[in-house]
Amino acid sequence: MENNVLSEKSATTKGYMTPKEFLAHWQGHRSLTRRVIDAFPEDQLFSFSIGGMRPFSDLAKEFTTMGVPSLHGMITGEWKGLDVLAPAGVKANPETKEELLALWDALTVRITELFNKIPEADFHKQISLFNQYDGEIYSLLLYIVDNEIHHRGQGYVYLRALNIEPPYFYER
Amino acid sequence: MENNVLSEKSATTKGYMTPKEFLAHWQGHRSLTRRVIDAFPEDQLFSFSIGGMRPFSDLAKEFTTMGVPSLHGMITGEWKGLDVLAPAGVKANPETKEELLALWDALTVRITELFNKIPEADFHKQISLFNQYDGEIYSLLLYIVDNEIHHRGQGYVYLRALNIEPPYFYER
Repeated sequence: MENNVLSEKSATTKGYMTPKEFLAHWQGHRSLTRRVIDAFPEDQLFSFSIGGMRPFSDLAKEFTTMGVPSLHGMITGEWKGLDVLAPAGVKANPETKEELLALWDALTVRITELFNKIPEADFHKQISLFNQYDGEIYSLLLYIVDNEIHHRGQGYVYLRALNIEPPYFYER
Repeated sequence: MENNVLSEKSATTKGYMTPKEFLAHWQGHRSLTRRVIDAFPEDQLFSFSIGGMRPFSDLAKEFTTMGVPSLHGMITGEWKGLDVLAPAGVKANPETKEELLALWDALTVRITELFNKIPEADFHKQISLFNQYDGEIYSLLLYIVDNEIHHRGQGYVYLRALNIEPPYFYER
């Protein structure tokens, strides 16, 4: 009986979304961002800018420095940069579109591996990300996704200004 | 004993985030978007564009058509537009910055009221939004927030191109 009650309770207490659903949300956005990176001609990826903003390569590189280093720290309590944590065989500081996409793909695998190590109860644990940003884990990870959506939206304007059709926003 | 087990279970099954936390996330983003609308000079809000894209007023008006009409439908099963659902005293189709901000503020109140009527178990209910977009409620609402972040990021490029400093992204 107790088990029945528990499983019933569990079915109605996924909360707003489950950790697995959040991971799919995150990786869906990363998949779209990969296509936005790939839509840029190589020279424009590293140089095109509007209003003094960074080129899209710099925005994409910012995303690569956030996911894996944050997850690694959330699990171990040690805050290290991508220079230490980049998966073997890829450059932490890519200088071509090919190198950037190779880094992106290696991080895609690593993000899933690391995210799955966070116990469900820990998503509401208060931490200090890089000893600098205080918050609960769920909120800090959500911020990382929001930051990617925000800057990727800027990449869409760059592509439109370059007369290039960006990928559909709703296709993940 | 059973109660103890249940409350312990409940404490560790907030899922990734609770509905209340999602609402705070959504309203935090809406608060930032309000400041982005307000940062535009009135004429540029309704006219400035890059690469053939819509002016920021049109993007902001798109956001206003999504939140309340979606929530209303999720609760009642009836899909109606903002022309029917706009709160009393505000214009569904604002033509000045003042009218747009007044609509925004009225919808802020309404979104909280409507969102709080959704039972927690319903966030995983499969629906067809406007008889057009199939998905679970949590995912459809998340899409509405993502769409706002995405297009607001584009508004940041407009502001930068106009030499106007946008609000900090991390301040909600």
